[in-house]
Amino acid sequence: MKRIAYLLSAFVALTGVVAYMAHATAEADKEAAPIFGVTIPPGYRDWKLISVAHEEGSNNDLRAVLGNDVAIKAFRERKLPLPDGAIIARLAWSYIPSEENNKAFGRAQSFVAGAPINVQFMVKDSIKYAATGGWGFAQFKDGKPDGAALLKTCFPCHQPAKAQDLVFTHYSP
Amino acid sequence: MKRIAYLLSAFVALTGVVAYMAHATAEADKEAAPIFGVTIPPGYRDWKLISVAHEEGSNNDLRAVLGNDVAIKAFRERKLPLPDGAIIARLAWSYIPSEENNKAFGRAQSFVAGAPINVQFMVKDSIKYAATGGWGFAQFKDGKPDGAALLKTCFPCHQPAKAQDLVFTHYSP
Repeated sequence: MKRIAYLLSAFVALTGVVAYMAHATAEADKEAAPIFGVTIPPGYRDWKLISVAHEEGSNNDLRAVLGNDVAIKAFRERKLPLPDGAIIARLAWSYIPSEENNKAFGRAQSFVAGAPINVQFMVKDSIKYAATGGWGFAQFKDGKPDGAALLKTCFPCHQPAKAQDLVFTHYSP
Repeated sequence: MKRIAYLLSAFVALTGVVAYMAHATAEADKEAAPIFGVTIPPGYRDWKLISVAHEEGSNNDLRAVLGNDVAIKAFRERKLPLPDGAIIARLAWSYIPSEENNKAFGRAQSFVAGAPINVQFMVKDSIKYAATGGWGFAQFKDGKPDGAALLKTCFPCHQPAKAQDLVFTHYSP
């Protein structure tokens, strides 16, 4: 009986640890970026594709730009400005040559997505983010938000895309 | 009364033309590729992203690889071979410098997706396509399937990826 009680209490303790870990992970995922308070939108990796790009800059990345349903609908209908509720996700991976693809092609021509670099989000809320063109900005690396100094550069840097509601990316059919 | 009858018959005729055109478009979308009989899967542009790449070869493209739900589940669970019903879509766009992005960055560093080049599909059916590793292959340009000569190169060209069930692309988290 003692043994059963011991096993039971060990099980309960273990369950507690697992529950705590799960909770801690969920909390980490919910850590808000500074200034705009943007958190990682649940399920964003399942969103539909807006377009792809290669930026040679300091990241030297391959990137995919995804949109939630509100954003995708607006892009497809060429609706500007994007409506409140639209969220755009920019996923960047390191830009690396693919040895296996090059072997298959018989020449060096293939560049693929390597390790994840970071993920950025633009969240449309014309009232909450009125001071920054209706957009809240965030960047996460391994689930952790980047700091305020970086996020302060987002709005001014996006100014050249003002005619497209501060969004650089065009929809690719 | 004659006039109304005339207008009515003109309206009916016009409706018929529109209906025929809509039907013809739907039929064109369903034109099957040779050898494997693969048609364009409805809604594939809404599928989830597997990964992105840049191929400098004859296409010189930026590409996105999408998967239907069966394929995405298998990729995320690293399940090989991919199960029957899995379909992989490879969308290729021309690889072009983005003048507007380069202006914003202050240097030439940005390459984006231009005009669509073509779309390829790999359809898993281990019985129907037993002779080609369980995969049916197709390529469409502007909704029209490419010919048998091209499709005959797919299976042998994918051989180097045999250990990954003939799929070159790896899932990007």
